[in-house]
Amino acid sequence: MAYKAPVEQISFILNNIVGFPELAASERFVDATPETAGAILSEAGKMATNVLARLNRNGDEHPAALENGKLRSSPGYADGFRAIADGGWIGLPANPEYGGMGLPQALNMSVSEMMAGACLALQLNPLLTQGQIEALEHHASDELKALYLPKLISGEWSGTMNLTEPGAGSDVGALSSRADRNDDGTYSVTGQKIFITWGDSDVTENVCHLVLARLPDGGKGTKGISLFMVPKLIPDENGNPGVANKLKVVSLEEKMGIHGSPTCVMSYEGATGWLVGKEHGGMAAMFTMMNVARLGVGVQGVGVAEAALQQAVAYAQERNQMGPIIQHPDVRRMLATARAEVFAARAICLACATAIDMQIATGDADQAARAAFLTPIAKAYGTDVGCRVADTGVQVHGGMGYVEETGAAQYLRDVRITPIYEGTNGIQAMDLVGRKLSDGGEAAMRLLDEILDAAKAAQSAHPALANQVWQAAETLREATQDMLERDLSERFAGAVPYLSAFARVLGGAYHLKAVQAGGADHLALARVYMARVLPRYASDLVEAQAGLADLTDIDDAVLAGDFRA
Amino acid sequence: MAYKAPVEQISFILNNIVGFPELAASERFVDATPETAGAILSEAGKMATNVLARLNRNGDEHPAALENGKLRSSPGYADGFRAIADGGWIGLPANPEYGGMGLPQALNMSVSEMMAGACLALQLNPLLTQGQIEALEHHASDELKALYLPKLISGEWSGTMNLTEPGAGSDVGALSSRADRNDDGTYSVTGQKIFITWGDSDVTENVCHLVLARLPDGGKGTKGISLFMVPKLIPDENGNPGVANKLKVVSLEEKMGIHGSPTCVMSYEGATGWLVGKEHGGMAAMFTMMNVARLGVGVQGVGVAEAALQQAVAYAQERNQMGPIIQHPDVRRMLATARAEVFAARAICLACATAIDMQIATGDADQAARAAFLTPIAKAYGTDVGCRVADTGVQVHGGMGYVEETGAAQYLRDVRITPIYEGTNGIQAMDLVGRKLSDGGEAAMRLLDEILDAAKAAQSAHPALANQVWQAAETLREATQDMLERDLSERFAGAVPYLSAFARVLGGAYHLKAVQAGGADHLALARVYMARVLPRYASDLVEAQAGLADLTDIDDAVLAGDFRA
Repeated sequence: MAYKAPVEQISFILNNIVGFPELAASERFVDATPETAGAILSEAGKMATNVLARLNRNGDEHPAALENGKLRSSPGYADGFRAIADGGWIGLPANPEYGGMGLPQALNMSVSEMMAGACLALQLNPLLTQGQIEALEHHASDELKALYLPKLISGEWSGTMNLTEPGAGSDVGALSSRADRNDDGTYSVTGQKIFITWGDSDVTENVCHLVLARLPDGGKGTKGISLFMVPKLIPDENGNPGVANKLKVVSLEEKMGIHGSPTCVMSYEGATGWLVGKEHGGMAAMFTMMNVARLGVGVQGVGVAEAALQQAVAYAQERNQMGPIIQHPDVRRMLATARAEVFAARAICLACATAIDMQIATGDADQAARAAFLTPIAKAYGTDVGCRVADTGVQVHGGMGYVEETGAAQYLRDVRITPIYEGTNGIQAMDLVGRKLSDGGEAAMRLLDEILDAAKAAQSAHPALANQVWQAAETLREATQDMLERDLSERFAGAVPYLSAFARVLGGAYHLKAVQAGGADHLALARVYMARVLPRYASDLVEAQAGLADLTDIDDAVLAGDFRA
Repeated sequence: MAYKAPVEQISFILNNIVGFPELAASERFVDATPETAGAILSEAGKMATNVLARLNRNGDEHPAALENGKLRSSPGYADGFRAIADGGWIGLPANPEYGGMGLPQALNMSVSEMMAGACLALQLNPLLTQGQIEALEHHASDELKALYLPKLISGEWSGTMNLTEPGAGSDVGALSSRADRNDDGTYSVTGQKIFITWGDSDVTENVCHLVLARLPDGGKGTKGISLFMVPKLIPDENGNPGVANKLKVVSLEEKMGIHGSPTCVMSYEGATGWLVGKEHGGMAAMFTMMNVARLGVGVQGVGVAEAALQQAVAYAQERNQMGPIIQHPDVRRMLATARAEVFAARAICLACATAIDMQIATGDADQAARAAFLTPIAKAYGTDVGCRVADTGVQVHGGMGYVEETGAAQYLRDVRITPIYEGTNGIQAMDLVGRKLSDGGEAAMRLLDEILDAAKAAQSAHPALANQVWQAAETLREATQDMLERDLSERFAGAVPYLSAFARVLGGAYHLKAVQAGGADHLALARVYMARVLPRYASDLVEAQAGLADLTDIDDAVLAGDFRA
């Protein structure tokens, strides 16, 4: 069963749930009318459906490989990447001054979701390139911008992010890559980086690495880190790829999934780099792009969930075991629950994207706080739903789901990276209960007020559903208050279930809005959500408030399975 | 980090939680003293730790392959299988008359868990062979028994089960394989079978296939099916492997995991077979072994969970990111939750095994009903825990978990088959709320009384924990009553969450028993369980009682993502 980009669903959510039409009222996004949005979604959807989706199995069956030190990408990926670049989708949110479209992230994330659903391993390339574009727009010198942005936006060149080292993962500040100042104002970058997505490419003529490294006088921890542009081929005086830089791909990781995406071990051996932002200010530059990158990963989860679910539904309609299995109550329960969760996760991601856009358009601090609060929820819930729904897809296929030829297993293997990279979902949850509650809960309470407003609006037409959301939101408010009174360690112990509860309740509010704006189908889906997805907020919150004592009381040996007699 | 067989933990549960010592009071299991059990667990544990665990990566990296129509198994598997056979473990529960040890299933399942934790793909071979031994013991003629049982029990030959066909999975009755009567009392079997685990083997000198097929006068559905022994090599007059039978392995499936276990498409082309049981009585013979086989799969889930958790704990102790990550509250939460669930799942599986043994030893109908009720819970919860814990293992490893070299991903890919085969977990749950509640809930209520007894016994020493279990059991009793009043379709819609709730509450009772019998470590683990695992029974039961209407009201098109405007 072929993936079909969910253009109508995305349009419905943009226009009726998350306030996308309000963006066009701003000067910044005056072009982002629902009409333009519709045309763009339709066009990008066609590409995802007709071009990218066909490449998805290729990447899994013929992984990216290193041949004589050079990358050989999966069959058809070069054409796929060209289609993405030619559509202008890489530069969709980028500055028009350098060739971008300057359109909202809400639209960009919608297109990203469709590309990720069609072919996750390939979509990672434009996703990383977009992150680099954003970092350069905010922090690079005018010279660097003029040289790199047009090439990145057009897709002639692609971009990577080099943070992780063997000893520095979640703890970025522990990195040991070194940068030395050269006399000509450039830098020499030396070190090893791991987990570099699309660290080499044969689908673009140059690969531009943004690398975090420490200057000799850079202090310890994150505050001593600087960011450098280190191109694979050093641009000549005309801005064309010139001599090879002193860097190489050492090896590719053999991974559980996204085989079409080369995950590289990179070695920089005195490679020439150009400073991006200020010396020792590398982390600030990284943080600029982090919200968008994290949201982008949440959206990947939604995209794969959509694709896996479409395939599972098609299989369940065709497969007969005492009638089509889609009619069996348990199979129907799995599929309906998955559909209700995909709706909620998509709405949360697009609400987050719209908040980022509103912040850009208005500079409003409340919108900034709203975007910041929604980001870890969108990332973690989007990717959790991605994994859950892909897992459901395998289960619905029965034995055929475990056989690779159906592709159901690939969705599960591919999407399993998304709760890990760009900050694990545990890190997201800690960000939520730590940094994002550090305003004393203001952003959380404003969001809860929005949820209550949605419940109020639905009260007269759908009292039962509205009351469920209302009650859940009130319980969540109490739990939030309780969180605020705990120290950080206790909050961290309850962070993941707290985030899960918040996502469920928020999803409930968006389902209510859909019921108000949509027809009988949305009402039917909302009922499934309220019966099978929302109620689990309660046990999430029980665990969120369980504290830390039980975890500190237990011995490491017991965790390993050794109990004292 | 190497797998270490959890001998002490298993012994503790056998001797203190599930009533294993009572078995030795019966005539049937008079030899199964705790001392004998201890010696057997220790010996089998050594083999699992020292021999089998080393083979686990081999199977994944060098899958079983078909070379010129013959199977080539993974490196070292032949030695591993020989170690299992030489230990006598294949015949552990088998009739001593044919070379078996005649020991309880509780002990057999304990050994199976350790073998599965060490090397799931290889353990499948003795698991299937044991199933065949059991079927032959109950249903084969004396001649067939005398010929086949000694060879199967010694591990000279191995056994397979041939049920599934392309059009007949969960609906076994739809099968189309055919058997014709020959003049000499044998049969000619023709048809194609799929998903045949270890359908060929180079680790044994013969492979014995039990094949379900329909005689010309066999009616439609399950009642017209007969069971046949169809050996790969037809035994000669001395009982040695003779001429090749008319059957072949057409191909091997490429699967998500258990690469070391060849999953075969088999073709029978007028192959000579011998009837097992009565004509048209094949399903009865299958049902005989089904309880044990299903429990065996639940135990596989526990085994892989144990192995994955041991590795995750070891990694979390070594990995430093601002201190060893095992000290981070969220990582500790994941590991402690996993350990608490592994304990519960293991106790449930061994309680089920002991009930099967008590039924064998006493012929008591209540014990039979108890075993029958516990079986789907053990299968589904054991394998769900297997998947959850293996997933946790990947997540704790962060990016390294997604890279195949650590082995964390293999556990997840391997164990993912267990909720599917031997009846999907959806089928298990439907069996629970359908057939297993068809006694009007008697077996369920007796089990709930046991849970309440455990709570009462813990009441004075640990009132808070005991009250939690008590309350949960009372709520579960009400939900069970409610289930009984619903029709089958409604029960099926709530079957999976109902089973989950039952498992959580039952696990709570076994944790209480462990607190009574064990020391401070068990108390600490029970607290984690009561805070983080048990409470989710409540939302499970909300969903279990949600009914069917929301699922029938929703359109297939909506499930696929197409909403009416």
